[in-house]
Amino acid sequence: MGVNDLNRRSFLGVSAGALLCTIGGQKVYTDQPVDPESLAAGVTVPPKVRAAKQNPGLIKAGAITGVRKEYWISAETRRWNIIPPGPNGKRMDQMLNQRVNKGRTTFEAYAYRAYTENFGQPIQANAVPGPTLEATVGETLVVHFRNNLPVPVTMHPHGVFYSNEMDGAYKGYWTDPGGFVQPGEEFTYVWECPEGTQGSWIYHDHGPLDPIPLYKGLFGSIVVRDPNEQPPDKEFFIGFHSFSPVATGLRFNFNCVNGRAFTGNTPTYRANIGDVVDFHVYGMDDNFHTFHLHGHRWEGASGAMVDNVTFGPGDSFRIRLTEDNPGRWFYHCHVFSHLHDGMSGWYLVE
Amino acid sequence: MGVNDLNRRSFLGVSAGALLCTIGGQKVYTDQPVDPESLAAGVTVPPKVRAAKQNPGLIKAGAITGVRKEYWISAETRRWNIIPPGPNGKRMDQMLNQRVNKGRTTFEAYAYRAYTENFGQPIQANAVPGPTLEATVGETLVVHFRNNLPVPVTMHPHGVFYSNEMDGAYKGYWTDPGGFVQPGEEFTYVWECPEGTQGSWIYHDHGPLDPIPLYKGLFGSIVVRDPNEQPPDKEFFIGFHSFSPVATGLRFNFNCVNGRAFTGNTPTYRANIGDVVDFHVYGMDDNFHTFHLHGHRWEGASGAMVDNVTFGPGDSFRIRLTEDNPGRWFYHCHVFSHLHDGMSGWYLVE
Amino acid sequence: MGVNDLNRRSFLGVSAGALLCTIGGQKVYTDQPVDPESLAAGVTVPPKVRAAKQNPGLIKAGAITGVRKEYWISAETRRWNIIPPGPNGKRMDQMLNQRVNKGRTTFEAYAYRAYTENFGQPIQANAVPGPTLEATVGETLVVHFRNNLPVPVTMHPHGVFYSNEMDGAYKGYWTDPGGFVQPGEEFTYVWECPEGTQGSWIYHDHGPLDPIPLYKGLFGSIVVRDPNEQPPDKEFFIGFHSFSPVATGLRFNFNCVNGRAFTGNTPTYRANIGDVVDFHVYGMDDNFHTFHLHGHRWEGASGAMVDNVTFGPGDSFRIRLTEDNPGRWFYHCHVFSHLHDGMSGWYLVE
Repeated sequence: MGVNDLNRRSFLGVSAGALLCTIGGQKVYTDQPVDPESLAAGVTVPPKVRAAKQNPGLIKAGAITGVRKEYWISAETRRWNIIPPGPNGKRMDQMLNQRVNKGRTTFEAYAYRAYTENFGQPIQANAVPGPTLEATVGETLVVHFRNNLPVPVTMHPHGVFYSNEMDGAYKGYWTDPGGFVQPGEEFTYVWECPEGTQGSWIYHDHGPLDPIPLYKGLFGSIVVRDPNEQPPDKEFFIGFHSFSPVATGLRFNFNCVNGRAFTGNTPTYRANIGDVVDFHVYGMDDNFHTFHLHGHRWEGASGAMVDNVTFGPGDSFRIRLTEDNPGRWFYHCHVFSHLHDGMSGWYLVE
Repeated sequence: MGVNDLNRRSFLGVSAGALLCTIGGQKVYTDQPVDPESLAAGVTVPPKVRAAKQNPGLIKAGAITGVRKEYWISAETRRWNIIPPGPNGKRMDQMLNQRVNKGRTTFEAYAYRAYTENFGQPIQANAVPGPTLEATVGETLVVHFRNNLPVPVTMHPHGVFYSNEMDGAYKGYWTDPGGFVQPGEEFTYVWECPEGTQGSWIYHDHGPLDPIPLYKGLFGSIVVRDPNEQPPDKEFFIGFHSFSPVATGLRFNFNCVNGRAFTGNTPTYRANIGDVVDFHVYGMDDNFHTFHLHGHRWEGASGAMVDNVTFGPGDSFRIRLTEDNPGRWFYHCHVFSHLHDGMSGWYLVE
Repeated sequence: MGVNDLNRRSFLGVSAGALLCTIGGQKVYTDQPVDPESLAAGVTVPPKVRAAKQNPGLIKAGAITGVRKEYWISAETRRWNIIPPGPNGKRMDQMLNQRVNKGRTTFEAYAYRAYTENFGQPIQANAVPGPTLEATVGETLVVHFRNNLPVPVTMHPHGVFYSNEMDGAYKGYWTDPGGFVQPGEEFTYVWECPEGTQGSWIYHDHGPLDPIPLYKGLFGSIVVRDPNEQPPDKEFFIGFHSFSPVATGLRFNFNCVNGRAFTGNTPTYRANIGDVVDFHVYGMDDNFHTFHLHGHRWEGASGAMVDNVTFGPGDSFRIRLTEDNPGRWFYHCHVFSHLHDGMSGWYLVE
């Protein structure tokens, strides 16, 4: 959608993009880069957030029932290359076996990062998307969140059960401390996973600068497993999203899978014949997408077989199939301007 | 989509919007205001409509079986403020606790309005959307419609059963009288609700100026209840739509819920713990949306639990849940440029 | 979405469209016409394709089990008129009973065309979309494909089972011969239809110039029938797609059904009371659509009754209903800018 070649039109001196939102009194357009710290400067700290800073005892924790699944998650900046150079030193699109010629591809992303207990050591490089949070029905996710970014952000979950204070959403005057975690501060989210929450879900920033931090990479998957269901042999978590000029400052928009664009840079998934394979798919930008997988099909929502599924922002779903077809396959968005602008990847079956 | 800040680009002297349609020989662009009466002047009155005006006996009424549910509905103009000033005299977005700075917000809307028997007294202020039409399976909706607008419009229903003459759709040469109700005229629509029509539906203008009158507010909900199903304790009818410059003449596009934009202006819904709550949701503009509700989830189309549903123009569906989570929650479209430009509201549970 | 009136903006000297893709090193914008042969000149023939040309024995055919259903399909150019003049010599929109005033409507389309055995005689005029390929569960589609176009194209199927070499998709360096059928060459696709592949599917070009050849008309339907299900009395195959300036060189975009635009030019379908009627619907452009049918409803994915379904590019699905409502009805996309710009047609029931 919209315009993604800023340079070709900059002489016009106007934005050709749509109004995205207004943050801290500044209008934000879809194609014009913003400075998150400048936006944050215009936002008033809500009264309950101010009060809790002076008296942390005011923070009401959710009840913790069942087995704790505990995570330590930090939000951090990260130089992120959407299309890292390949072995030949060039940025390649393996789908077309051609160089990608879209100018600069590196920017300062925001990423959730998992640490060992009490933020001892990072478990992984910080990356887009953030770590997958896992629980089984009956367990409770306890997520210790530390904001190491220069702007207030949050963690807002989908699908799980949580009391109102654990919503992780900015609500203007009524904002709870978990909905406005300031730079350098911590907040512990308690999210319960009772019967009825099994499924593929997501979490993402929903703070006062939303959607800018999310557009810069602040999202990830949650999976709540049903103990009565056969576990998969392989499972893949696939986020279709955009890195757009408003959030990256780059010249072009990039249609991405898990933070990367174009086949060979996006994840290459592997499975074997006979594997039970779960694809957990979600949408995390302003666009609608479809998930298409070559050489395979599965039972769709209506009971009919499908090999292509429409979904939108905030949707998440799981496809399960038993692998029966060896070879080099594409998974991709079937929106042609997404598919051919980076939203595609390899799925290799042996 | 497209451009919603006319002022910033008017010096270009061109429309940056897409061709929406051609009405009465005039091309209509998505971002350029139109004059409905001028469009109507270019439309020829179809032969069956002319004939029926001279001889009302030519109008074939649908069969009326079952219990009549009778409505008297008028279409009227209405000065409509998309963002009424709050108690502080300012137009506010409670989601971000900030003023909305989008210029003028009032325009001449079109609205369906319910009256007592034989158009005796208005039952309510005219408003967007129109009154919800209710029936139970086995009943017949008899809708006496009077057009008090300066242009021809209609009522076209979804979901219910109706004979061809009761379609309420302009069909060029083949148009029936119910598909072209002229200013000052009346038409009685007979819509049956046999087994198989239970569900959440919509009605809207489908006359010769479609979609302009609908874009100005001519739409509403129909609900056909299944007598074998437990009635809800609370139910909410939620239309996601746009008030766009083509129909309002205002500078900006507004992403709306039920005629209003931004949290606190859009409907605030209330329920209690233990309530069976039905959300009837529909889309009524050119965009696709998702319906997301914080702190809750429900069984989706595939049988898996979901908390976010993709839908498009003309789609209508019902979500049922038993309320179990107190607090101040958001319902919103998860398309970020919709969510943050007004398509959001409060849901309060005690 | 985007801009569809090139003329009004050409003085700007810039593309207002989005980057669609990069083919053969050339950037392709949604609103700027391209020359497919010039694009093709920039594409390198993949090594396995070169090798097979020198030694056709290298082509691995899929196993052929079950009964063969054999087709001979050629891809050809065809002068195609999106809106043929009516009996009055004018291009009409019967929905509004007005002339269509969108400039030229004829361009050089690409079309799949069916022939008798061994490419003896054409079975039909070549047309958009291509012939429907039919099989019953247990059979194998054997599709002899000859490329009579000036650029490399393919046939890629959805839904059926096929070994990796039969994918019909360009895969850069790893491309198999079936993924890059050069002008004048032939390739035989073997696509199996075992249990689990019953349904409504599509096929389309997925070669090195994708999506341009598809945008010019290279797509069609596949139906795999379940022998245990009642056959329909009537069935209709309905593709919602666009003929856009990038592929046609015409001034305007056209919202089409099966290659034609505006009611009366798009297919007029006919059925009788009591008929079991199947609508096979698919999306084949960059947009999302809904399928709406006046005067009817059917069981939707969730089990609730619906009369409007959202779908996207690459989605295909079947609606089955028993005809019970005589008259002149519309089927149409409920996206208003699609509906009123040509994506609509008649459905006549007697």
